[in-house]
Amino acid sequence: MIPAFLENDAAAVQARLQTIYPRGERTCSVLYRAQNYSLLAGGKRIRPALVLESCRMLGGDSRVALDFAAAVEMVHTYSLIHDDLPCMDNDDLRRGRPTNHKVFGEDIATLAGDGLLTDAFGVILSCPYASDKSRADAALALSRGAGSFGMVKGQVIDMFGEKNTLTEQELLELHRGKTGALIEAAVRLGCHAAGIEEGDTRFDALVRYAQHIGLAFQVMDDVLDCTQTAEIMGKSVGGDARDQKTTFMTFYDVQGAKAYAADLTQRAIDAIEDIAGSENLIELARYLAKRSY
Amino acid sequence: MIPAFLENDAAAVQARLQTIYPRGERTCSVLYRAQNYSLLAGGKRIRPALVLESCRMLGGDSRVALDFAAAVEMVHTYSLIHDDLPCMDNDDLRRGRPTNHKVFGEDIATLAGDGLLTDAFGVILSCPYASDKSRADAALALSRGAGSFGMVKGQVIDMFGEKNTLTEQELLELHRGKTGALIEAAVRLGCHAAGIEEGDTRFDALVRYAQHIGLAFQVMDDVLDCTQTAEIMGKSVGGDARDQKTTFMTFYDVQGAKAYAADLTQRAIDAIEDIAGSENLIELARYLAKRSY
Repeated sequence: MIPAFLENDAAAVQARLQTIYPRGERTCSVLYRAQNYSLLAGGKRIRPALVLESCRMLGGDSRVALDFAAAVEMVHTYSLIHDDLPCMDNDDLRRGRPTNHKVFGEDIATLAGDGLLTDAFGVILSCPYASDKSRADAALALSRGAGSFGMVKGQVIDMFGEKNTLTEQELLELHRGKTGALIEAAVRLGCHAAGIEEGDTRFDALVRYAQHIGLAFQVMDDVLDCTQTAEIMGKSVGGDARDQKTTFMTFYDVQGAKAYAADLTQRAIDAIEDIAGSENLIELARYLAKRSY
Repeated sequence: MIPAFLENDAAAVQARLQTIYPRGERTCSVLYRAQNYSLLAGGKRIRPALVLESCRMLGGDSRVALDFAAAVEMVHTYSLIHDDLPCMDNDDLRRGRPTNHKVFGEDIATLAGDGLLTDAFGVILSCPYASDKSRADAALALSRGAGSFGMVKGQVIDMFGEKNTLTEQELLELHRGKTGALIEAAVRLGCHAAGIEEGDTRFDALVRYAQHIGLAFQVMDDVLDCTQTAEIMGKSVGGDARDQKTTFMTFYDVQGAKAYAADLTQRAIDAIEDIAGSENLIELARYLAKRSY
């Protein structure tokens, strides 16, 4: 069961995202159509929910959080569009629909992603309700999470791992970058939306929370890839073993990996449970841990 | 003859750019090598010079301007890497060297560009000498110049123009986006580095200056494509006419286009000549107008 607050957050973010791209003139309307095609396609909107719920817990302005949340989802969407490109994962389907480049062509898909990434910073930086410090620090956190020392680095390590055996340390580094960095950026943005800075105990607790749920999610991903059927997952499975890819299953058996994921989830909850108003984030951590696909 | 200040600016920017990317671990060093390959390849560094010289004219802190200048060049470099990709212009050579994807592969080239773009915001936003307002406003100006309503939009209009006849208004919109928007962003960043805001007469004068030199440059580009030999230009020429592409030569003859470019350059100079310290920017406008390639 999806928590009610998560559905509400997703609806609020969807409404905000619908305002970003206009129809456009005949010369460029295809760009905005391509961007909206992927941006408004739905999904659970976990990252924006982390922004919104972190800010809510800290008593911040929800209008600021909504802009920051939209920006994180724009960056997530760009990363999916570029990941699906023929020169990357070469995927034809995403959430049951043709991928962006299948519909709009590789050139437009590349530019749609470039634009989404660039515009995400604009959405943060033009938020009329945020202080100068808040918008600058939030945009910096997004750059660090998404850039060459965060998400992009994780993607490159992943490609390296397709041709080389990774150490466990390198596998952790891969996931810290590829999925962890943007999840961590999301709670950082929630803090900046609320005017809470690095060094505040609640800021640091939220960062630990995000790091642990991000890693737990990845560990469970690897477990599910080798235990579930393609039917349940809605995508092909068993690919990791076939490709002899280094995953957490290289270092743990199924039982050990499940215990590791459960431990990470508990540590995420431990990090924030003493903070007033952390109920939704705790529920989110439990919800993410329970998924079977 | 390249003006001496332009050579000095280029050297300062080069030194700053060399500090951005580390060697990296074995898992991701290819990313930073790919980024440095294109970022440190040289070029006239016109955009960063516009940041530095605008800030200097306004009496701002040159350390701030140098960070902002580096960021603009990172965005320019990302745009070149992505433009050269097989799904875009499919170019094998850039400044006499193999293009990024020819050396590192399309996947790494795509990610190298994504990272450069994302990191550019980080360079602005982590500048320790800039005020919160200055770094936030500068990063916003960069997002607007480079994003889906600026440079990316111009690129999409260019692609539309390859299959459709453009009106003169649409051609202007193409160039305002494709090259003009980042040139304009450069002077905006110079102003923000100096703490000068939109609405200040010098800010508005610099924006007009940038808009006019950007357009003059494009008009001369179209003239040279139909008047110069491939030998002088160092690249293939006459492609516009062969492709029946809409250019300024669709609307002007050679003499008319040259007069238009000269008029734009003069209007750029007129915009700033009464501002104390504008000598270098005036020299830059004249230098750009005189080029024969």
